[in-house]
Amino acid sequence: MAGNTFGSLFKLTTFGESHGEAIGGIIEGCPAGLKIDFDAIQAEMQRRKPGQSKIVTQRKEEDEVQFLSGLFEGVTTGSPIGFQIKNTNQKSKDYNHNKDSYRPSHADFTYDKKYGLRDYRGGGRSSARETANWVVGGAVAKQLIKDLKINAYVSSVGDIFLEKPYQDLDFSKTESNAVRCPDEATAQKMEALIKQIRKEGDTVGGTITCVIQQLPVGLGEPVFDKLHARLGQAMLSINAVKGFEYGSGFCGARMKGSQHNDLFEKDGSTKTNLSGGIQGGISNGMDIYFRVAFKPVATIMQKQQTIDNEGNLTEIQGKGRHDPCVVPRAVPIVEGMAALVMADFYLMNKLSKI
Amino acid sequence: MAGNTFGSLFKLTTFGESHGEAIGGIIEGCPAGLKIDFDAIQAEMQRRKPGQSKIVTQRKEEDEVQFLSGLFEGVTTGSPIGFQIKNTNQKSKDYNHNKDSYRPSHADFTYDKKYGLRDYRGGGRSSARETANWVVGGAVAKQLIKDLKINAYVSSVGDIFLEKPYQDLDFSKTESNAVRCPDEATAQKMEALIKQIRKEGDTVGGTITCVIQQLPVGLGEPVFDKLHARLGQAMLSINAVKGFEYGSGFCGARMKGSQHNDLFEKDGSTKTNLSGGIQGGISNGMDIYFRVAFKPVATIMQKQQTIDNEGNLTEIQGKGRHDPCVVPRAVPIVEGMAALVMADFYLMNKLSKI
Amino acid sequence: MAGNTFGSLFKLTTFGESHGEAIGGIIEGCPAGLKIDFDAIQAEMQRRKPGQSKIVTQRKEEDEVQFLSGLFEGVTTGSPIGFQIKNTNQKSKDYNHNKDSYRPSHADFTYDKKYGLRDYRGGGRSSARETANWVVGGAVAKQLIKDLKINAYVSSVGDIFLEKPYQDLDFSKTESNAVRCPDEATAQKMEALIKQIRKEGDTVGGTITCVIQQLPVGLGEPVFDKLHARLGQAMLSINAVKGFEYGSGFCGARMKGSQHNDLFEKDGSTKTNLSGGIQGGISNGMDIYFRVAFKPVATIMQKQQTIDNEGNLTEIQGKGRHDPCVVPRAVPIVEGMAALVMADFYLMNKLSKI
Amino acid sequence: MAGNTFGSLFKLTTFGESHGEAIGGIIEGCPAGLKIDFDAIQAEMQRRKPGQSKIVTQRKEEDEVQFLSGLFEGVTTGSPIGFQIKNTNQKSKDYNHNKDSYRPSHADFTYDKKYGLRDYRGGGRSSARETANWVVGGAVAKQLIKDLKINAYVSSVGDIFLEKPYQDLDFSKTESNAVRCPDEATAQKMEALIKQIRKEGDTVGGTITCVIQQLPVGLGEPVFDKLHARLGQAMLSINAVKGFEYGSGFCGARMKGSQHNDLFEKDGSTKTNLSGGIQGGISNGMDIYFRVAFKPVATIMQKQQTIDNEGNLTEIQGKGRHDPCVVPRAVPIVEGMAALVMADFYLMNKLSKI
Repeated sequence: MAGNTFGSLFKLTTFGESHGEAIGGIIEGCPAGLKIDFDAIQAEMQRRKPGQSKIVTQRKEEDEVQFLSGLFEGVTTGSPIGFQIKNTNQKSKDYNHNKDSYRPSHADFTYDKKYGLRDYRGGGRSSARETANWVVGGAVAKQLIKDLKINAYVSSVGDIFLEKPYQDLDFSKTESNAVRCPDEATAQKMEALIKQIRKEGDTVGGTITCVIQQLPVGLGEPVFDKLHARLGQAMLSINAVKGFEYGSGFCGARMKGSQHNDLFEKDGSTKTNLSGGIQGGISNGMDIYFRVAFKPVATIMQKQQTIDNEGNLTEIQGKGRHDPCVVPRAVPIVEGMAALVMADFYLMNKLSKI
Repeated sequence: MAGNTFGSLFKLTTFGESHGEAIGGIIEGCPAGLKIDFDAIQAEMQRRKPGQSKIVTQRKEEDEVQFLSGLFEGVTTGSPIGFQIKNTNQKSKDYNHNKDSYRPSHADFTYDKKYGLRDYRGGGRSSARETANWVVGGAVAKQLIKDLKINAYVSSVGDIFLEKPYQDLDFSKTESNAVRCPDEATAQKMEALIKQIRKEGDTVGGTITCVIQQLPVGLGEPVFDKLHARLGQAMLSINAVKGFEYGSGFCGARMKGSQHNDLFEKDGSTKTNLSGGIQGGISNGMDIYFRVAFKPVATIMQKQQTIDNEGNLTEIQGKGRHDPCVVPRAVPIVEGMAALVMADFYLMNKLSKI
Repeated sequence: MAGNTFGSLFKLTTFGESHGEAIGGIIEGCPAGLKIDFDAIQAEMQRRKPGQSKIVTQRKEEDEVQFLSGLFEGVTTGSPIGFQIKNTNQKSKDYNHNKDSYRPSHADFTYDKKYGLRDYRGGGRSSARETANWVVGGAVAKQLIKDLKINAYVSSVGDIFLEKPYQDLDFSKTESNAVRCPDEATAQKMEALIKQIRKEGDTVGGTITCVIQQLPVGLGEPVFDKLHARLGQAMLSINAVKGFEYGSGFCGARMKGSQHNDLFEKDGSTKTNLSGGIQGGISNGMDIYFRVAFKPVATIMQKQQTIDNEGNLTEIQGKGRHDPCVVPRAVPIVEGMAALVMADFYLMNKLSKI
Repeated sequence: MAGNTFGSLFKLTTFGESHGEAIGGIIEGCPAGLKIDFDAIQAEMQRRKPGQSKIVTQRKEEDEVQFLSGLFEGVTTGSPIGFQIKNTNQKSKDYNHNKDSYRPSHADFTYDKKYGLRDYRGGGRSSARETANWVVGGAVAKQLIKDLKINAYVSSVGDIFLEKPYQDLDFSKTESNAVRCPDEATAQKMEALIKQIRKEGDTVGGTITCVIQQLPVGLGEPVFDKLHARLGQAMLSINAVKGFEYGSGFCGARMKGSQHNDLFEKDGSTKTNLSGGIQGGISNGMDIYFRVAFKPVATIMQKQQTIDNEGNLTEIQGKGRHDPCVVPRAVPIVEGMAALVMADFYLMNKLSKI
C-alpha cells in the first residue's frame, strides 16, 4: 500500500524525485503482442513537458523516455515494461532557500513530519515531475485501448469559463493554442489572464474537463472500484487537484429525480446523459465526462511569511521556473490517468462472465 | 481487484444483495486488544436504518449486526472479524415489475450487460443495502482511531443550502432533526422541501459535508494513495454520489495563489486552511473538510418510459418503499467510509519511519 | 496483507475460529454464469468432515455450507459469494485445560505473544477447522475449471510408503478406504498403523501426493507467482505441513542435467516429466504432480511437560477428539487449495496476450 | 498479480531481461531514516556475480547497482527506491541457436505458448539474471532487520551431503571456498565433483540450507501468509528450485507426535526444535531453518534432441557460459529472498496489537 502503484491488472509503479538522477516506472499487465508506437508516447511527453510555450515554466527537460525491458522488436512480451526518464536539467541550487523553510501550501512540512527528513530539492517526491511517469504509463494504456477516445481540455482558468458543452467542441483544436482550450476565443482570454497573473508574480487555478467516448458497456467493478470512484482517485492523485465531479456532478445535487433520470432509447442508449456514462459504477456505453478542479500553483514570485524547521518565522519567495497556471500542462496528465483507469477495467471486464 | 474490498491494512471485504438471506463482511487488520463497544456500532446502524423518520423510506429492517469471529470476550484478537446482517424484511414481490424492465438511471441495464444476468430483486448487489456493511466497518474503524472526530452533516437539499461554515456549527445538533442538518432553521426548510417533493412522487438531491478533526500530521501515502484521493474514492463509492471536493474545492480553481496559500503559524498550524488539512496528500494536522454531492434517488413514484431486456419500449413506475432524498441517511455512511480511510492510513503511518 | 485472503483474481477471504458461532468466507472473482452444483460442494465437505471413519476424530460437525449471496437461481452473478458454516458441535469445556497452558508444538504460545491474547477454545483461528472454508472455496474453483482433473491421495503414513508411481494408480479407488490411499494393500497397512498409533495415545505424520491433469499450457505468472511457488505457498498454508516438492523434487537435487532434462516430442509434450509439468513457472501441458509432508498431529493423549502463561512448568494431556493422523482428512484440503491456485491462474492467463 | 512484485509492505517490484539494456526494480515500504551501507549491497552482488571462481560461469558482469531515487544523503526518505543494473556483457549472438528451437527443460516453450512470442536472447525474463534484482532488494531488507542473522550455505551437491547439523558449523567459513559450504572437507569434495561434471559437459543439482537466528517472536500472518508459506513461495520462485522443507520437513512426516513435539522450557524456548522456529505460521523465537532443492542446470554442453517452433525434430547444444552447478551462486539469492520475507513480516508485526 506504499502508494506508488496505480491499477490492479494494468499496473503502473513509479519512482523518482524531481532532482534525482532519473525518474521512472514499471508497467505491468500489458498483454503480450501489442505493437508499441514510440512516437506517440514521446508526443504525449512533449505535451506535458515544461517550456513548450510562453505561459508555462521555462525549465527545459528533454523528457525522453527510455524503455529498458518488456519489449522485443517493438512488441510487448508480457514481461514488465521498465522505463526511465533522466533528469537532465536539475538546478538544485534554486532550492537551497527551501532547505530549512517550509513553502506555504507545499508538501515540505508534511513530508518532513511524516518521514523525519525530506529531499528538499524541488519538492522531491512531491514534485509534479513525477507525473511524467504517469504520462508514459497512460500513453501505453491508450495504445492498448485504442478504440476509446479520451479527450481532455481546459474548461476554465480563474473566472474565465468555456461555456460551451463538450458536444459543441472540436477536440482537434485543443492543441492549437497554448492553453489547450478547444474554443479559440475563450483560449485567448485565458491566455491573456495567465500572462497578466504571471506578470504579477502570482498564479491562478482552473479546471479541466475530460470526455471518454466510444467505450464498451461493462467497465467498472462495483462496489468499491466503481468506474467513477477510480477515475476520482486517479484525478485526485494529480498534484493541485481539489475536486472531481462527473456527469451532472454538483449540479445534480440540486435537481429532482424526474429531471435527472436518463430515459432509455430502444437501443439501450439514453435520451439524456446526466449519469455521465456510468450507472452503478459500470459504463453504460454513453460518453463519460468529468471535471477536475486545480488550485493555483503554490509557488508564487512574491514574498510570503512562513516558518523554518525550528518554528521560527521567516520569509520565502519562489525562485526557479514555475508555471503561473498548471492546467494547460495538466491536460495530458488527466488523459493519461484516465487511460490507466480505463485499461485496467478493460482487462478486468474480460473476466466478468464465463 | 474484484471490487469488494476497501482498504489495504484496515480492510473491509463485503458480500450481499438487498434481497438475499443476509449481507455481511470481513474486517481484517484491526489490531488485537481493542475493546469493542457494540452499542456504539448498533447506534451507527440505527442512524443509517430505513424507517427512522417520516422523510425516509418506510421499509423496516432491524439491521442487527451479528459478529461471528475475531473477538474474544469483547476484545479484538487480531483475527478477521466476520459479521452478518440478516435481510429480515425483503419484499421481493415489490420488484417483479423490475424483472424484465430496466429502471432509468439505475444499474439494472449495466449489470445485465456486464454479467449476462442479474439479481433483479431490489437492485441486488447495486442496492444501497450494501452500505449497511460499510457502516459496520466504519463503526469499528472509529473505535480504533477514537481520538479523531469525524462529523458529517447535510449541507444542502435541492437549492436549500446551509450557508454557515462548519466552524459556526454545533455538531451535537446534527442528530436533533430528521434531515441531519445541525442548523435548526435550515433543517426545517430542508424537511419541508423533502416532504413536498415526496408528495409529488419525486426525489431530490443534496450534499453532505464532512469534517475530520484532532487528527495527527502524517496520514496519507503519496503518490497515488494521497489522503484526499482515497477519501474521494471512498465517497464516490457511495451510491448516488456525483462529486467530491475538499478544502477550497471547485472554488479554489477560481483563486490566485496569493489568496489560496495557507501561511504558517509558528507552531506549524496555518492561518487559513484552504488546503483542507492536506498538503501533498498527507494530513498537516489542520481540520480536513470535504463536500460530497448526491444526485436525486432514481426511483420515483411517477411513470417513466423505459425499455425491457428485449429493447421494447415500456413504462415503469417505482413501487416499494424508497427515500425521497438520500442525504439524511447517507450521513453515517459518509462518516463510516471516512473512518475506514483514516484507520487504514493511521496504521500505515506507523511504518513511515524507523 | 492480513493473511486471510488467498488468490488475486479468484479470491477467497475467510474468517472464523473453531469454537465461535460460525466460520465462513467470501469468494470473489468467480465469473458470472457458472451453474453451481451444490451437492458436489457438500460432497467435498463430507470428505473433510471429522467423524467419517474410525481412524479420524470423532467430533461430529454437520459442516453444512450456507450460501448467502452471489448466486441467483443457482448461477453465479459475478457478485461476491458469501458463505458460512455453523459451528454446531463445539465443546469448549474440552479446552479449559488449555486456557493458561501452552500446548507443545501448537500455536498457543505464538498467538499469545503476537496478539497479546488468544481465543483458547480449540486453537481459535489456528485450528484446522478453518480448512473447511478452504474446501468450500476449492469446490467452487473446481467447478470453474472443470476440465482439469485434480486428484490427491495419501502416499505415506509414518514409514509405510505407497511405492507405485501415480501413473500406476486408479484414482477412483482413493475414496474406497478410510485412509484415502488408492492402493488397497498399502491402505490396509496404513490403517493398521494408524489404529495402533491411536491405541498408544500417539499420532503419526504422512505425505499426500497430488496430481493435476488435462491442464492447458500457460498457467503461472513469473517471476514471483510461478505456478509451483503458489502451489507451494498454498500447501504450506495447510496446518501441519512441513515440506513441499514437485516434479523430481529433492531427488532432482541429486541428479545430472543429462538425466534430468525432459526432451521434447514433436507435439510439444516431453518424453519424461521430471519438470513436473512446469517450466519457468508456467504449465507446459504435462501432468503436474507434487508431494506434501505433514508432521504428526501435536495433540497426543499422553502427558507432556509444558509451561503456563506465567512461565511455570506444568503438565498437559490432550482431551477432546483428535485425529491420530491428519493425512486422510487432508486429502480434500490439498485438492481444494490446488483448485484455488489453478482457478486463479486460469483467469489470469486469459489476459496474457492480446 | 502480474507476478513481478514480492512482498506486501516491504515490496520489491522488478523488471528486466538477461539481454536488454538493464534490469532493475523498485523497493517500496522501506521506512524513512535508514542509513544505507552501499558497500554491503555491492558485496552481496559480488557473491551472486558470475565469473567469481572456476566452478561458476565465466560470463563477466559488473553488476553494479545504481540507485536512482528514494535516498537523500545516503538515508532512505520513505519514497520508493528505484535502482538499475546495466547489462554490460550481453553476447546475444550466443543465443541465435535458441531462436527457433526450444531448449529442453527451459522456459522457451512455455513462454512462447503463453505470450505468443518471446525474447529468445538468453532466456529473456526467465533468465536467472533477474535474481540480481532480488539480491539488491534482499540486501536492503537485511539492513532494515539487521538484528536478524540470515545464513545460507550449500548443504549438498549431487550425492555429496554435508552431514553436520547447522549448529556444528561456523558460518563465517561459508565464503572461504568457492562452493560456499562452511565445512572445508565437504567443500573440497563438492568442488571436485563440480569440476568433473563440468568436464563431462554436464551439470548437477544440489541443496541449500538457510538458518535465521536472533529473530523475535511474532513474525508471520496466518492463515495464508504463514511465515513458512511465504518462505516457501520465496524459495520456489528461485530458478531451478524443486522443493522446500523447514524444521523436520519430509522426515517429520515419518515421526510420531510424542517424538516430534517440542516441549517448552520455562523461558518459552523449546528443548527441541523440530518445528523449525515456527508454530501456527508465526515465529516462536527459536532458529528457523529450511532446506531448498535445486535441480541440475538445464543447459548442458551435450547434444540433445529437441523441437523447433514448428514441431520439427532438431538438435541443440548449450553454448555460451553457464554454471555446471547453480547452488554456490544461489546462496546469496536464498539469503536475499529470506530477508525480503522477514522484512515484510517484521513491518507487519508492528501492527499486530494496539
